[in-house]
Amino acid sequence: MNTNTQTTRLYHTALSPFCRKVRLVLAEKRIEVELVEERYWENPPELRRRNPAGKLPVLRYRGNMLAESQAIVEYLDESVPQPPLMPQAPLERHEVRRLCSWFDDKFNAEVTSPILNERVWKKVTRAGYPDSRVVKDGLRAIKEHIDYLSSLLETRRWLAGANMSLADFTAAAHFSCLDYISDVDWDRSETLRDWYATIKSRPAFRSILADQVPGIHPAPHYAELDFG
Amino acid sequence: MNTNTQTTRLYHTALSPFCRKVRLVLAEKRIEVELVEERYWENPPELRRRNPAGKLPVLRYRGNMLAESQAIVEYLDESVPQPPLMPQAPLERHEVRRLCSWFDDKFNAEVTSPILNERVWKKVTRAGYPDSRVVKDGLRAIKEHIDYLSSLLETRRWLAGANMSLADFTAAAHFSCLDYISDVDWDRSETLRDWYATIKSRPAFRSILADQVPGIHPAPHYAELDFG
Repeated sequence: MNTNTQTTRLYHTALSPFCRKVRLVLAEKRIEVELVEERYWENPPELRRRNPAGKLPVLRYRGNMLAESQAIVEYLDESVPQPPLMPQAPLERHEVRRLCSWFDDKFNAEVTSPILNERVWKKVTRAGYPDSRVVKDGLRAIKEHIDYLSSLLETRRWLAGANMSLADFTAAAHFSCLDYISDVDWDRSETLRDWYATIKSRPAFRSILADQVPGIHPAPHYAELDFG
Repeated sequence: MNTNTQTTRLYHTALSPFCRKVRLVLAEKRIEVELVEERYWENPPELRRRNPAGKLPVLRYRGNMLAESQAIVEYLDESVPQPPLMPQAPLERHEVRRLCSWFDDKFNAEVTSPILNERVWKKVTRAGYPDSRVVKDGLRAIKEHIDYLSSLLETRRWLAGANMSLADFTAAAHFSCLDYISDVDWDRSETLRDWYATIKSRPAFRSILADQVPGIHPAPHYAELDFG
């Protein structure tokens, strides 16, 4: 077997919460990875060969092609046990997965996807100007989410319970994309802001904080660990 | 504790692939459940109290309220081990979860959700007439999916590998909703048709085959085990 096929490689795009989730978990597990940026909106044929669903991220790991961000991070947690990012008890595991779905489904549909579509992807793909109503709806929706997450963090150290888990990295992946374009009102909740400052200061976050999307400058506080 | 809070109860709606997935897994695990039909489109306040995401299904089980279909079925598989619906090896588990996401995300967005919206939900909620273009796009998309799944089943007994898994029940949940309104062209693939006939004949399928949505009659072959 060609040793080259053994290099861990992530096909990704910078401001995707799904790709960032996998990057964060790879880094937390200290798995070295080669990042390959894909212009997925041009629907390159290699992408569909690597993942028949035609979506990013795709992870080449130990000679296998892995797809679907949640399936990938659960696989990584099962095959690289340290540090563990899933609790042991079924009920606690349910809570982690419930919150992962909360972000990848509900939060994404109501906040991340509409805001990034309008403010980033339309610019990157030259598909026109942002629709300010869509952005406004997203910014209205994020308030309710911040309040809900703050209420969870009133009684928990991490989002899903006493320990840091896949739920925190999933949430941080979404918030970090929005934070790049300065669309998180951190003043709304000190609790949530403290949680984000803690996870953002982990070494696993470094690669994400160094991201630069051509033509779109990060917010001044984006890479600052104390929010300036 | 009130014994009543210990009754297993599923808050659901009949033609939802996400609710059906949980019903199938509950039945396969032989967990008796009381079904409570919810008119979720009226956004009842109790629903948001049970699940802050405001979505179905919600499962009350052993005194806990569980939400998000994939999180629920993984919980059920972990807490009621027989019969196992997840393989042991991380790579095989990844494949099960990849296919669950394939159906709940891609297949749902391209096929189940647009077709059911136009042909069922608009009628149930009196929101107007079906848009035939949307239905046509969905029926075009399903062909590619059928071809892909057939190609998987060429070398596998079940969708994700040698054993029946959550991937088969997730897929069957989506197909059964479409089959109710006769929108699956089973003639396109004998392989897929045989797979569906096999899973449909399991006792776990009985409750779903007895579903009746007011005002929408099931296709004549819907509940027939040999497709007539």
